[in-house]
This record gives sequence, C-alpha cells and structure tokens, in this order.
Amino acid sequence: MPLPAPKKVVLAYSGGLDTSIILKWLQTEYGAEVVTFTADLGQGEELAPAREKALKLGIKEENIFIDDLREEFVRDYVFPMFRANALYEGQYLLGTSIARPLIAKRQIEIARMVGADAVCHGATGKGNDQVRFELGYYALEPDIRVIAPWREWAFKSREHLLDFAEKHQIPISKDKRGEAPFSVDANLLHSSSEGKVLEDPAVEAPEFVHQRTLSPEDAPDTPTVITIGFERGDAVSVNGEAMSPATLLTALNQYGHDNGIGRLDLVENRFVGMKSRGVYETPGGTILLAAHRGIESITLDRGAMHLKDELAVKYAHLLYNGFWFSPEREMLQAAIDHSQTKVSGTVRVKLYKGNATVIGRESPNSLYDQELVTFEDGAVAYDQKDAAGFIKLNALRLRVLGKRDQRGEG
Amino acid sequence: MPLPAPKKVVLAYSGGLDTSIILKWLQTEYGAEVVTFTADLGQGEELAPAREKALKLGIKEENIFIDDLREEFVRDYVFPMFRANALYEGQYLLGTSIARPLIAKRQIEIARMVGADAVCHGATGKGNDQVRFELGYYALEPDIRVIAPWREWAFKSREHLLDFAEKHQIPISKDKRGEAPFSVDANLLHSSSEGKVLEDPAVEAPEFVHQRTLSPEDAPDTPTVITIGFERGDAVSVNGEAMSPATLLTALNQYGHDNGIGRLDLVENRFVGMKSRGVYETPGGTILLAAHRGIESITLDRGAMHLKDELAVKYAHLLYNGFWFSPEREMLQAAIDHSQTKVSGTVRVKLYKGNATVIGRESPNSLYDQELVTFEDGAVAYDQKDAAGFIKLNALRLRVLGKRDQRGEG
Amino acid sequence: MPLPAPKKVVLAYSGGLDTSIILKWLQTEYGAEVVTFTADLGQGEELAPAREKALKLGIKEENIFIDDLREEFVRDYVFPMFRANALYEGQYLLGTSIARPLIAKRQIEIARMVGADAVCHGATGKGNDQVRFELGYYALEPDIRVIAPWREWAFKSREHLLDFAEKHQIPISKDKRGEAPFSVDANLLHSSSEGKVLEDPAVEAPEFVHQRTLSPEDAPDTPTVITIGFERGDAVSVNGEAMSPATLLTALNQYGHDNGIGRLDLVENRFVGMKSRGVYETPGGTILLAAHRGIESITLDRGAMHLKDELAVKYAHLLYNGFWFSPEREMLQAAIDHSQTKVSGTVRVKLYKGNATVIGRESPNSLYDQELVTFEDGAVAYDQKDAAGFIKLNALRLRVLGKRDQRGEG
Amino acid sequence: MPLPAPKKVVLAYSGGLDTSIILKWLQTEYGAEVVTFTADLGQGEELAPAREKALKLGIKEENIFIDDLREEFVRDYVFPMFRANALYEGQYLLGTSIARPLIAKRQIEIARMVGADAVCHGATGKGNDQVRFELGYYALEPDIRVIAPWREWAFKSREHLLDFAEKHQIPISKDKRGEAPFSVDANLLHSSSEGKVLEDPAVEAPEFVHQRTLSPEDAPDTPTVITIGFERGDAVSVNGEAMSPATLLTALNQYGHDNGIGRLDLVENRFVGMKSRGVYETPGGTILLAAHRGIESITLDRGAMHLKDELAVKYAHLLYNGFWFSPEREMLQAAIDHSQTKVSGTVRVKLYKGNATVIGRESPNSLYDQELVTFEDGAVAYDQKDAAGFIKLNALRLRVLGKRDQRGEG
Repeated sequence: MPLPAPKKVVLAYSGGLDTSIILKWLQTEYGAEVVTFTADLGQGEELAPAREKALKLGIKEENIFIDDLREEFVRDYVFPMFRANALYEGQYLLGTSIARPLIAKRQIEIARMVGADAVCHGATGKGNDQVRFELGYYALEPDIRVIAPWREWAFKSREHLLDFAEKHQIPISKDKRGEAPFSVDANLLHSSSEGKVLEDPAVEAPEFVHQRTLSPEDAPDTPTVITIGFERGDAVSVNGEAMSPATLLTALNQYGHDNGIGRLDLVENRFVGMKSRGVYETPGGTILLAAHRGIESITLDRGAMHLKDELAVKYAHLLYNGFWFSPEREMLQAAIDHSQTKVSGTVRVKLYKGNATVIGRESPNSLYDQELVTFEDGAVAYDQKDAAGFIKLNALRLRVLGKRDQRGEG
Repeated sequence: MPLPAPKKVVLAYSGGLDTSIILKWLQTEYGAEVVTFTADLGQGEELAPAREKALKLGIKEENIFIDDLREEFVRDYVFPMFRANALYEGQYLLGTSIARPLIAKRQIEIARMVGADAVCHGATGKGNDQVRFELGYYALEPDIRVIAPWREWAFKSREHLLDFAEKHQIPISKDKRGEAPFSVDANLLHSSSEGKVLEDPAVEAPEFVHQRTLSPEDAPDTPTVITIGFERGDAVSVNGEAMSPATLLTALNQYGHDNGIGRLDLVENRFVGMKSRGVYETPGGTILLAAHRGIESITLDRGAMHLKDELAVKYAHLLYNGFWFSPEREMLQAAIDHSQTKVSGTVRVKLYKGNATVIGRESPNSLYDQELVTFEDGAVAYDQKDAAGFIKLNALRLRVLGKRDQRGEG
Repeated sequence: MPLPAPKKVVLAYSGGLDTSIILKWLQTEYGAEVVTFTADLGQGEELAPAREKALKLGIKEENIFIDDLREEFVRDYVFPMFRANALYEGQYLLGTSIARPLIAKRQIEIARMVGADAVCHGATGKGNDQVRFELGYYALEPDIRVIAPWREWAFKSREHLLDFAEKHQIPISKDKRGEAPFSVDANLLHSSSEGKVLEDPAVEAPEFVHQRTLSPEDAPDTPTVITIGFERGDAVSVNGEAMSPATLLTALNQYGHDNGIGRLDLVENRFVGMKSRGVYETPGGTILLAAHRGIESITLDRGAMHLKDELAVKYAHLLYNGFWFSPEREMLQAAIDHSQTKVSGTVRVKLYKGNATVIGRESPNSLYDQELVTFEDGAVAYDQKDAAGFIKLNALRLRVLGKRDQRGEG
Repeated sequence: MPLPAPKKVVLAYSGGLDTSIILKWLQTEYGAEVVTFTADLGQGEELAPAREKALKLGIKEENIFIDDLREEFVRDYVFPMFRANALYEGQYLLGTSIARPLIAKRQIEIARMVGADAVCHGATGKGNDQVRFELGYYALEPDIRVIAPWREWAFKSREHLLDFAEKHQIPISKDKRGEAPFSVDANLLHSSSEGKVLEDPAVEAPEFVHQRTLSPEDAPDTPTVITIGFERGDAVSVNGEAMSPATLLTALNQYGHDNGIGRLDLVENRFVGMKSRGVYETPGGTILLAAHRGIESITLDRGAMHLKDELAVKYAHLLYNGFWFSPEREMLQAAIDHSQTKVSGTVRVKLYKGNATVIGRESPNSLYDQELVTFEDGAVAYDQKDAAGFIKLNALRLRVLGKRDQRGEG
C-alpha cells in the first residue's frame, strides 16, 4: 500500500545542483508544492543565489525560507557539545553531526508554519546524515512524511541525474559534468571532505582537499598566543574582547586557519555499518576543546571530571548516530551542564603550526591550591601521615586477595 | 604498639642524593640490612655509579641488585597499556603510572630471594607514586612491611636532610644545596617535571624544563614520514625494520625528540586528592598512540572499538591510581587483548614540529571496504533501501515519545 | 532487482502449524528444497512428531535434522550468561534471547553440510527474535540468504494462513481455528508468554498462562533447602550430586516449579522500538542467579564485582538485542570469565512460595575474613587509625571544593 | 603537633549507652561543651528519653537538639535515591547509606547555629558509616574538626568501656553487660543487623535478628493487593489516598512487614576494604522499588531507561561509599531527575509471603501502544518490512567482519 503523494514538502535546499534536482523531482514526481529552506550555518556560501535559483525553479516567494542560524547553531548546539568534550572514536569533533539536528528542527518548524505534510533532505542512502535528519524529524513531529530522494528515485547513475537536470533546465556548472574529486560538507564548526581521492586510506590526503586551514608547513614561523575567556563552561571572549558565540567561533576559526590547526584524517565507523574515510578541518573547535579542557582542569572537581570523561564517550556516540533529540542525550546534557556552573576563567593558548597548546589557566573559581602540593600547609591542611591510612585501606582487599591466592597455590 | 624494626629492607635505589639518604636512614634508624635495587627502565642514567655509591655506603656486593628491565617494561607494561589507548583525564599518557608496578614487582621478587622482611621507596607523602608502589607491594606480598621514609622520618626541612647527608658522608653535588627549580621522573616512555617553576598554572612552563624533546619551533622545517608495523595490537617494526619492544620505543623517542612531539602541560587530579601541575614529554608514546589508533581504525570492528573507548576511561583511572595488580585491571586487559588479535598492519605517520599525523594505513585484516562506501556494490552488498527500515525502527521509540509529549501538551 | 529464488533452505522447524505452513510456502513459493532443523533445547515437546510431520510434508529423510542441543545450550550459552549475572532492564533473565544464537549457529552448520544457500526462521516482523536469528546467521555466514516469511509473504490475515494450510493438507488442531489466547516460547531456561490476554498491562496475567511454575499460593507450605555447588562460576552439583549442565538446570527447574519460583510479569522495551508485555517463568534460572550471586559474594573481590556490575548492564543489552556473536560480547565475556576462576564453593538456598533466598555460602576460596570484621586482628591486620587517613584523603577534594564554593558565596 | 582540644562539639546522640559514653568522654577527655543532636529518622524509638538522659549527663537545655527529620529524610534523600533504582551489589537498597548524609548535614547546621568547632559521631573504625558521616561533614564545612571516638580513645575492650560508664554513672541496662548477640541500625527505610550471630556467612540468620518483618512463613495465606500512585517518579498515594513521603513509606512498611517482604541476607564489600555480612529488612522500600520499576516500564523511553540502568550502578557505589554530597552524585541526580518528569501513574502490587509482584500499571503518559505490538496499525504505523532493513544495517559490520575472518582462515 504505497503512501499517498505528499502535497507540500519542506526541502532542505542549498541552492546547489543536487538539491535543485531534488526540488524539480519533487515537483514532477509527486506534483508537490515545494517549500525551500536554506540555512546559514556558516558554511561560507552566500545565500542570495539560493533564493534566485529557487525562484527560477518556480518556487513562490512565500515558500522560500532563508535563515541565518549561526548564533543559534553555536549557542544551542556547538557549545553544549563542547561542554561535554565530546570526541567520536577518540578524535572526531562531530562537526557534521551537530549541525543536522538544527536543520531538522527548523524544517519541522517551517512545515508547521506553512502547513506542509512532508520534509525532504538531500543526504544519500549510505551515510549518517540521512539518519540524523530523519531521527530529528520523527522525534519532533512523529507523523511527518519523510522523503529521502536518494533512496527513492529511479536514477541509476550520475549521468541520469544530469540528464534530468538538463531536461528541466537546471544550470550545471561545467566542472559538474566531470565528477568532483571529493565531496564537502561545511558549517561554522568544520568542513568535512570525503570520497574519490580520499577513498584509499593508505594514500595520503592531497593538500587540495583542505578548505579551512593552511597546512602546518605553510603556517607562520612564529607562534601566536591568544587568551580565551570562559563563563559557566562556554567561551565568551577572545583576548579580552567579549563576543557572541558565532562571532567567537568565527574568530577562533581564523586563528586556527592561519596556524594550520584542526586537520584530521580519519577512518571512522558509520552508524549505518561501514567504515569510511574523511578529512575534517575544525580549526576553531580544536582550539576551543583544548581551552575548555584547560579551564576545566583548574575549576572542575576530580569526581565531576572523571564522570564527565565516562559520559562523554556515550554522548559522542549518541550525537554521531543522530540521537540529539532523545531523552538519553538530554539526560547526559543535564549531568554535564550541572558540572559547568563554576567553569569560568581564562586560558592562554599558544598556536603554532598545527599545535594548540594550553600554556596558562586562571580562574576565580580555581580548585588548584599551590600550598597543598608543596611542603607548606595549604588552605586545607594536608597531613602526609594520612596517606599511610589511605593506602592501607585501599590495599586491604588486594591483600586479602593476595593471601587467598597464595593459599590456593600452596 | 609500634611494629618491630625491619631486619632486611629492599630499597628502590636510584643512586641519587635522596635515596642515598634513605639508605643511610634505614641503617641508622632501624639498624636494618639494606638491599639496593636499581632498575634500568630507560631513564637515561648510567647504572654503574649506583653500584659504586651503594658500595661506598656500606652495602654488601650480594645485596646490590641492578637490573635492565627495559624490555620487560615495554613488552609487559607499556604495550598492554597502549593496546587500551589509555589517556588519563583525556590527555596524559600515564608514563610514570605504568613504571611503578614493575619496580614494585621486582622489589618483591628480590625480597623473596634475599629473605627481606621489608621494602622501601623514596616517593613523597603527597604524590601518587607512594600509592602505586605500595598497592603493588601489598597485592603481591600481602604481609610485607612497607617503609615510606618521607612519611615517617622526623626531618622537618630540606636543610635537615642535607645535614644528615653531610654527617653520614653522602656526597652532595653543589647544585643540590640550592634547590633544584623542578623535579623530574623519567623512564623509557616519558619524562615528567613538576614543582617550583611549574607551580603556578597560569605561567607558561619554561623551555628549560623539557628533557626529551626539541621545542616544535626548534624542530626541522621539513616533515619526516615513518612507517610503523603492528602485530596483534603491538608495534613491531619501524620503517620495515623489526625491532624488540624497547628498541622500537627508543627509536620512536628519537623521532619524537627531533620533531618536537609529545609535550604536555597539564593540571591533573591526583589520587590523593589535590590538583597538581606537570609537564610531560612522551615523544615515542605520542607517536605510538596515534599509530595504534590508526591501525585500529581499519582493523577493529565498530562494536569492539566503541566498547574499548568506554573501557579505556576506567582503565586509565585504574592505572593512574595504582591498581595495575588488581582483578579489575586484569579483567579489562582480558577484554582489550581479546580485541587485538587482528590489529596488524602498517601505519604511516608524518612527524612535523609537534604534530604526529596518521596519513596512511594498510592491513591484510582491513575491514575498510572501498566498494561499500561508494555507489558500487561491495563484498557485502548494500541496499540503500535498507536504510529506510533502519531509520524507521530506530525512530520508532522517539515517535511514540513525541506523540506522548504532544498529547501531554495538548 | 529481486534476488534469484533460493534453491535449498534450512528451516528452523518446530513441527507446529506455523513452521509447517512456512515449510510448504518455501516449497510452493520458491520451489526450494527444504531441509528441516528441529532442536531440542528443552522446550518440553517430543521431537518424534516433528520428524513424522516433516516426512508427511515431503521432506526427504536426509534433509531432516533433529538435534538434542540441551547440554550445549546450557554449557555454552546459559552458563556464560549467568557468569555475568545478566538482567535486562533490571529484571528479565533473557531466556529467549540466549537460545536464538545457538539455533542460528546450528542452522548455519547444517547449511554448510547440506550445501544450502538459504536459511529460514518463523519469527514475526515485530519481535526481537528475527533480529537475533538473523544477526547470528549473518555474523557466521555473511553471504547467506535469509528468508523471513512473516515479513515476506502475502497472507493478510490468520484466516488466509489457515486456508493455505488446509489447501496443502497441513493438519490443524481444532483449537487453532479459534485463536490461542496467548503465544508461548519455551526452552530449558524459561518459558515466555505474550499476546492477547496479556496485552493490557493494567490487567493481571491470568493464572492459566503460566506453564512452568505452580503459583506461590499453590506451592508447599514448608520450605525446601537445597545446596548448589559451583566450580569456576558454573553450577556443578545439587545437594552434593554432580550433574551435567542440562541435568542440573532440569533439576533446578523442578525445584523452582514446585516452589512457585521465577515468575515475572514485565513490560519491556524491544530492540525494534516498541514496548511489549510478557510473562516469563524462569524457575531454575532464578534460583541459579541467586546462588551465583551468593557464591560470588564471598569469592569475588570488590573491584571485580563492581566492574562486573557495570559490564553486566551492557552485556544484557547486547544479548537482548541479538549481538551474541559480536566482538563486543566476546570482549565482555573475556573480562567476566577472567573474574570467575576462584568462584567455587557451595551455596544453600531456601525455596519457599516464590522466594529463593540464599541462607549460607562456603568456599575454600573465601575472601570473607571473620577476624577482619570484628575487634580481633584478622589474617590481615586492620588498624582502625588507618581509617582516619583514608577518610581524610577521600575528603580532600570535597573540602577544597567546599572552600571554593563558600568563597564564591561570600 | 596534636590539635588543640575542641571547645564545643555537636554529637550525634541516640540516647543509648554507647553515645552516652561518648558524651561523657568528650567532657572528660577534652573538657568540651557537648551539644547533643538526636534525630527522628523513623528508627522507631522514642526521643523523649534521649532528652532526659542528656540532661542527666549534664547537657544544658539549650544544647539539646531533637529533630523530627522523617519527612525531609524520605522526600530529599530516600525518594531521589529510589528515582535511580539504586541497588548496591545488585541487591542492597542502601538503607543505612542514605541516612548518614542527612544526619551529617543537620549536625553541621547545628554546629553553625551554636558556634561549635567540632562534630562527633559514634560509628566504629571498621565500618562504612564513619566514612559517610565524615565525608558529609567535610564537604559541607571543610574546616570542621571531626572527632571519631572509636578510632581515638584508649579503651581496649568492651569491659573498659563499661567500667568507664559505671564510673560516670551512665545507666547500663542489664542485658548490656552480657553482650548483645548482634547490633542494629534502623531508620524509616530499613533496619540492618550485623555481628556476632551473623558472623559466619555459612550459617543461616536466626529468625530473632529480624526486626521489621514477619517471616514469609508467618505471613498471611492470602495475598494483599495495593495500588501505588506516582507523580514525576515519586510515590504520592496508596490505594488512592494521597500521603506525605514519610507517611507513605510508613504505610508501605506496614504492608511489607505483614507480608514478610524485604528481607535480605547479604555478604557485601565495605568501602574500607573488607567483606561483611548483614541482614537487611526494607519492607516498604522493596515494594517501592518494584512499583517504581513498574511505572517506569510504561512511561520511560528505552533510551532513558537503559542509560539509567548504567548510571544506577555508579550512583549506588557513590551512595554506599558516602559521596552523597559530591559533584558526581549531583550530576547523576540531574540526569536521573530529568528522566522522571513523565513517570506518573498507578501500579498495582500483589503482596504475598515475601513476594511483591507488579500485576498492573496504568498511566496517562504511557508509551505502551497496544496496537503497535499486534497486527493492527498503532498510533505510529509499523511496517514489518522496515525490520528487514533494520536488521541488514545492524548486521552489516558483522558481515564484513565475518568475511574478514573467513578470509583470514582460508
């Protein structure tokens, strides 16, 4: 029993060739009224052309939505994630994963506004992004109709797609006939490149895939030192200048770019089951993670930090797999945010040819007590003799165990 | 009820001033026969002087034990830890933590050989090392008497200590009268510096505290690329040349040193309860971790890797806190080692001014399947339509939840 | 592109109506040669009729496989799971989950023996069992063709199915025309009932759904005390009589049955995304879990036990979801099994009207040290003064924190 | 350097022999002014005698504090813990652990009110309670002086203690000269018995140690069914009658008592390193845990429940070890509480001779969807074909792995 055709579809529309084809396919395949949604998440492309293209493809003015979501993106998605120090598989800063939920949320909001019965995205059927988009859609609007053209349409090859585009007068830039040597996703947090020239994980990624960073070799020969200010776990200033979240991340991206910081060449495990290889560039985020760990190192209690380190692994898995809008992610966030109330202060970071090194941290909330560590008595007196009892009781079970095992061997 | 005086004590003896004072103190305080144990763990000091000094301080030839433990150290302690990708508080490679259990184990072995009733170490009463030594002692020999002079003796200041040394004709190098600007622990895996000039975490660590690495600024302007071979999770060759564990780590240390790799300036949480600031240099280990993650990325299944990432946090806590010889560390090791049977292959790592970047990985056991990722059918066919069902069922609970919550709001 | 029809299919065949229909459907739909596999997992049905029915339905003698897998089931599946003390959602003893992997494994073995190109099971499209069977098939034989009739065939109702059965002369017992008031799965570990009369979770399960246990009300008015012997984590004797794994579980089942032990009425979360309500009866297993925890309580070190308690949650999730044949389950098993080498001794359990209460435990490997707990000195001396230092250092970080927070408020 | 004598000490005073001795010892040993604090936590003893005894022992009227903390205890300590479904070592409901932090907090509050410089408790040097009290004290008042007489005084035997009591005219009931056959701790949540007659874990606990429950054998021969109402994770009514937290727990205790529910005979691992054996009775709590799991089973999403099940293990460890007032416990609580906002509804529990069995659950927030489970379409449509894709992608990595391993063996 095939579903009835959708009547009005909100399409995540970039203005590029692929989503333009999808737009036209929705019109021709389903006879659907298409609503385009184009978000500025800091991907570094102008949005005006997206409007023009949508108009040319027959979208009504009132059906074109173009939103600058950069501040919301950094404030409500990137920053909460950085409070967790989340890294997927020990290395990946989750730059693509964190953007999808916001796009999904906004698409659902627009669908409600315009009375659409379906949403549509341009992610392929082999990647993680389809999961992230669709879990977001379903969590927020359980009965929404989801259209994933790459899993549905009958085009058997890129050639067919382009024929369809030509037939429907979608402009194709020359270099698209020949295939691009890799594909890119980008937003204010990172850019991600994969495919073609990157497919053999034994072969070094060519320099030209990098979008966001100078190579360490090309970066300046002298270090740059910056100071990042934190309030309650979030970065709020650079070199003493207060900045909004998106402005701050933009500034850090520039520092990272210039100093060759934030490149990652990774083979990772997709949620859909296969391994893939990508090159990520997260210049500002790499600096931010180092600095956040730096400020936490003096303001966060050991128990809180160690619990966070355990939770961060789960948190990263959830985000990567698309479960941003899930009770378990929200539970972890509640725990993490609870730990950040005193994570305020400043961190100095030295940037030099790929390295972002914390070289100093200060905080009115510091738990570092210089006297405690030295011979002098600190604010809290430390009696070295206490260590004897501490060790004795920590050792007790091991001693009982040792005796049992010696007994067994005897 | 004070314990009776120990009769024969195995002392972890470096040959330096402090452990020489301890040696003499054991003799004078307890009238004990002292057995010195000096281990070569790759700390980079000659051992011959330790023998001479011990003789001078009245130790009998048969009571002097000097062992080259470098191969055992790397093979049975460092490598198992690297199979786990263990990092304490997200950053520290545990170079000091991993050496203590081996020293403790060897001291106990010697105590059994010579019939000693006590063991003694030179760690202070404020640090982690006392815990690590003593938990090792007690786990392996539950009834052993443990002497920790820094917690026991009556010296009230460094001055008193030096007076005692002078009185007992222990040679004091001139710079020891004035205090050293920081203290150092070193072995084949790393060197660690802390104290004095490092005590203010707001102030950058001076260049002169670094022992093992050129600064990135002083490292060569051109990258070095090396190939590391792995078998079952352990590194076995560099640039195609098979090497023993200690030889291999020594070689990587040289590469790391030359390229300014492996520096870490960290405020960490000690097991005994306070924060401390240290500078670590782990040149070879930093390269090794990157390379091990690289070979795992193509040979380890996702389920195994994600479980490992969760276990690694606990594993690092156990090691840092001194629980190497504990059932729970052994359980984790059993799980981790089980995952490593196919972790074999080669990784190319680019070394450049502080960066150790994986640029290629190859393995006969690779799980990376180029065809699976692309449009073509792989060894295992992938049907994009499967993704629809996969997402639908992953979303099901979120949809039910979404409907419930909408109901609640309505 | 539909797959070519399978030529030879190994069917998990119970001899009942549903799998007989599947058998005939495989023959008629695909023209496939059907190989039947009927396992005795202790479900309590005779297997001879399954052979007769298969013959009647045209299966060749050499294509009928009937295996008594009871010992393998308990030894290699049930016992390893009980070493983990696995409970799904805090309560469910995983009786169905643990049987599926063994059936899957044996089907694959038979498929290899007879040269079959497909396997088939009778689990529905809404449950967990389809997942458990198929993950098992695919893990062991990645290219196997899997046929899941309930997801594939065109029958739209139970009526249609029965018409098909009648047309193909499959005998239908009278009570099958009217629908059964609930469905049952059973094996040596448990029976599970669900559906129809159990569907409203607000309504008490009727007494007649219970298969394996007297109700506590009907159980004897006097307790029965039994002694269970353990070796290395596995039960090996009851009341001093050594027994094979399956014999032992059978004996415990009888004790449990008679004393009304092991009933569970549960609403649980299926892997496929919805909640379902079932009634489980695990008489022997409930006794076994209590006894295993009892013997562990005196033979297992705290560190091992606490780690096990954390791992058990993950382990249960993996088993429930069908990931028995996965690297991560095997890793956890390696850790768990490592902990069990000294888990030997005897436990006395009192059985009375639904209660299985441990009332005594003894072991040559006991870590319980009566002297340690009392005022006297134990095998390992305990100095109460050590507790002061133990507490002081455990409190240190909390004190520093308390001072910081007071400072902040001041 | 011994600490100066405390001037004013807040003593946790039960009015019993031991804390009366402590009271007198504080006066004579230190010349300290003693402030007594006696809490009603539902231990079932009258408090008036404590006041009289304190007066007799020379405590000034204004230095006697007697507080009924039952409501605060259940509302702010017991209920948050039950939201977590916390069980220590799989079985213990933490009845003693959860009371200590509240007593510690109140002692500190009183110390501030009266300007005391020290607090004192009567817990021994071998148990967990000393840790729980003192971690609470130090977390809330980092500089407080803590006096733990059992670790400090010179009495070498019970005889000496009693001589001291006699000398200071502390009344000794006759049965105290001969020693009690076991010791008891009690509050509204549970009673705990240990020592003497319970010390051999091989020997069944005698019936007479039980304080709070009829034995199952003595309980009525007919079941009692009760209905418990929940709001946001907390029990709020019994059989439709709204009750305050303490009233409700008292009512459940009576039901539990009458039906022989909540006994536990356990060998557990103490934080201070040894194993001990205790008998716990938690009649109302045992019913409450079953009911809470019951209401969660229909109102809590799978992701939230599974995360909770993992966090509950850590949470229980923290509580048992005395870390109630720690950032990590608060973080876990934040996560747990976040999950409970919709955990409302009613649960029916059948009580019968030791069994507390959930037999029905209902909620306006139910996530159980009867239609989803059956063949009919539910509120959220379920397409059985989706299961095929779900399984295929879950199996993908296992298939790739299977092929790799077959390759390796070939």
